[in-house]
Parts: sequence; structure tokens; C-alpha cells
Amino acid sequence: MDEIPASHPRYKSLVIREKMKEYALEGIVAMEGLIAHGRGEAFDYIFGEKTLPSALAAEKVAIAYLLNAKNPVISVNGNVAALAHTEIVEFSRITGIKVEINLFHRSEERIKKIQKLLENDGLKKVYGLSDAAEIPFIESKRRFADREGIYSADVVFIPLEDGDRAQALKKMGKIVISIDLNPFSRTTLSSDVSIVDELTRAINNLTNLYNDMKNMDKEELKEMIKGFNNAENRKQIVYYICKKFDEWNGRDYPY
Amino acid sequence: MDEIPASHPRYKSLVIREKMKEYALEGIVAMEGLIAHGRGEAFDYIFGEKTLPSALAAEKVAIAYLLNAKNPVISVNGNVAALAHTEIVEFSRITGIKVEINLFHRSEERIKKIQKLLENDGLKKVYGLSDAAEIPFIESKRRFADREGIYSADVVFIPLEDGDRAQALKKMGKIVISIDLNPFSRTTLSSDVSIVDELTRAINNLTNLYNDMKNMDKEELKEMIKGFNNAENRKQIVYYICKKFDEWNGRDYPY
Repeated sequence: MDEIPASHPRYKSLVIREKMKEYALEGIVAMEGLIAHGRGEAFDYIFGEKTLPSALAAEKVAIAYLLNAKNPVISVNGNVAALAHTEIVEFSRITGIKVEINLFHRSEERIKKIQKLLENDGLKKVYGLSDAAEIPFIESKRRFADREGIYSADVVFIPLEDGDRAQALKKMGKIVISIDLNPFSRTTLSSDVSIVDELTRAINNLTNLYNDMKNMDKEELKEMIKGFNNAENRKQIVYYICKKFDEWNGRDYPY
Repeated sequence: MDEIPASHPRYKSLVIREKMKEYALEGIVAMEGLIAHGRGEAFDYIFGEKTLPSALAAEKVAIAYLLNAKNPVISVNGNVAALAHTEIVEFSRITGIKVEINLFHRSEERIKKIQKLLENDGLKKVYGLSDAAEIPFIESKRRFADREGIYSADVVFIPLEDGDRAQALKKMGKIVISIDLNPFSRTTLSSDVSIVDELTRAINNLTNLYNDMKNMDKEELKEMIKGFNNAENRKQIVYYICKKFDEWNGRDYPY
């Protein structure tokens, strides 16, 4: 790995990029996953690599759903594992949310590697190791779901998802909470709660919010959910981008 | 390669993505190159995967510079070779522009592979095979330049460039023409002519424009260059993005 100076204005993004590259060489991140990561980078760069107020609002409502859920599950693919395996295991330990591996480029070998990453971080039970149940409406290998996990879940967290699966999970009647930097992706557009934020920041925020909110009254949580307008919240993100662009247009260098 | 249906609304982008992946497996595209490609994809998606009027305006002025140049060179890195080796060789054949290989992740092996790609397309002379001359102000391996090529060039075309090198070439007093989908990148911001367009579309446009413009009067070309405001042209691209976002905000699905 080339040395990245800690003083670099985009230090964290560059360190993450190096990490993604190493996980790709190990076979955990797919080649397509690297390209997808780049698409996310472009949006995060526009967001100034920080959580926008609208993203934090979505994260709060996501925790309200989680606290009201009977069988919540978080889905982990290669990019998610590479970027945030430690953060996700910690989030699961605190909240009790189940963790399920689900891969587009599914192979026994990749599943085992990701399982090992999660178990090394202390996760007791990894879902999605077998391909027993199938989600309807999907043709890709992402259709496989764990009967005790996503298949029967009421609330599903889907970070870095593809649009087909996000829509299929919605059609199955689940509450879908996405984490995706692209405010226009089909995943973002089809979720009940669309968190437009970088994955590790989002999971850290969700962990903190859970601790803040876990003793809240159920009715209060329901009010919070009822008061949230996901489409309007997403629009605020887009307004923010344009405001930023207008600012940048007036300057020579955005960084 | 998974079969992509030709009817897919983003067919071309998906085919290119598959191609990038294969070139990465062959060692021509670097892992970082895949991530960089994803960043470009995000912007091109916003542009509707077509050349904007402002991009075409920049392409016209680029050809005016090329027609007035004494020693013009186009720089080729791993991504450029993967995406457009055939188009670049054709552009060079028609215009006489020199083609020089320049790599951030420079190795003899990668240079040879790219040289072979270009020669198979019919390029007679490939520049940048030795590391004789060095561009000042750059620490990375991209500092190496061919004495007969970029080092002594008056006009340099730099597709998919990094910001450090773009700025170093400017400091050397060269006319710099960039091709980069990110309207805010340092490369875009430091070039004399910033073509914010997808590479293969840009090269095809440049080839057509060269044929249209090659018999134009030198004075007319100079007037064209003088009348062009690169900063203003770039701002038009940003206005376009925001207009698009406003449109999308009013709809449920952008595609």
C-alpha cells in the first residue's frame, strides 16, 4: 500500500480505497464492486464526505423501525463486508439485529471468506450460509435468502444494494431501509427509509442513535415513523447537492 | 461475461463495465482504475450518457488547438487504453497526433501490454516506452515523459488524468486539454480546455470534428480559441446537472 499522508484533505476516502483494493485482491470484493464503490465515492465527494442533516433524519427513523421490529436483519455483500465488517458486528451485538450474507457474485468460497471476517469480529451466528429459500421476482443469485433471516424478516437493512433486490423485498411486503450514496438509485427510490450516507458513517451513527433511543416509548417511535416523509427527505439531499454546486461554481477549486 | 440484453436502457455503460473488468483481470487496468471508472460512471449517468452541448463546444476548441499545434501528443493510461485504444489509434492516424503511454502504476509489463494493444490497432510509433525525461513537480511514476513526446509537446491531450500531473503540465507551459467526466476534478479545473464527456464519445466526436474543421483557415481557428471561455463553459455543465436534478426531483424514477 502506498503511504497516504494523514494531512491529505481526503485521507479517509483514500484509505478506504486502498482497503477496497486489498479486499478485491483477496476475492471478497468483486471487480464490479470496485466500480460500484467509485460511483459512491463521486456522490460522497459532493457531500463533502460528511453526513447531511437529511441523512441523519433518515437514520433516526431507521432506528425507530428497528426498535419496533420483530425480526430485523441486515444484509451483507462483498463491499459491505470489506468496508464495515467490524462496525456491523458491533451494531448487531448492541441491537440484536441478525446479519445475513447475500452476494450477487455468489460462490461458496466468497461466502466462507466473508463469514470468517464476521466471525473473527465476534459474530456468533451468521445467516445466509445455505441457499434454502428463494425471494421471488429476482433472477440473479441474490434471490437466495435464509429462511430464519431475510426471508422471514419484517424489517431489512440493505446497504449498497442492487435495485432489483430492493424492489423484490418491497414486493414481499417488508420494510426496506437502504444505505446508498446515490440519491437517484432504484434502491434509494424504492426504500421506505433511504439513508443517503457513506456506509461506515451511517453504521456508526445508527449505533449511537440506538443507544440514545433504545428507551424511548413505543408510541413515540411510531409517531416518529408516521411523521417521516422519505421522498421529501431525499429531495432535500438533492437540493443540497445543487446548493453545493452553485457554491463551487463561484470558486476555482472546491478543495 | 454475463449476457446483457441490448434492450437495457443503460446497455452501453454495462458493456463498458464488463470490458473494464476483463482488462483489470488482464492487468491493463489497475484496481484503482476500476474505482476511478465508477466515479466517472456516476457523472455520466447524470449526463444521461450523452454529450452535452457544452462538451461539444469544448471538443471543437480542442480541435482548433490541435490544428494549430506544432507537436501535439495524447496521453494514454490503463483506463484510456482499455476504454478506447482502437478509437485513439484511429484519431492518431487521421490527425497525426502522437500517442504516449503514461502510467501511475507504472511497470514494464503493463507498458508492454498497452503497447501491444495500440500496435495491434495499427499504431506505428508508441511514445513513452522509456523513462528518459522527467516532468518536474510530480513525485509519482507519472513524472516520466518521452523527450520526443509529452516532454517537448506544445499541446497535450490528457484523458482520465490525475490532478497533480495536469497541474504540472500546465506549470511547464503546455496547452492542456483534458477529458474527464467530473466537472469539479482538479484536472478539469486546471486545463485550458476541459472536455467533460465520456472518453469514447469524446474521441469519436473529436475525430468527426477534425474531419469537419481540418481545412479551416488558421485565423478562424485562432478566433475560435480566443472566443472560448473554459471556466464559463464548465459552469454550464454544472447548471445542466442541477436542472436535471430538479427534473428528477419531480419524478419517481429517473429511468
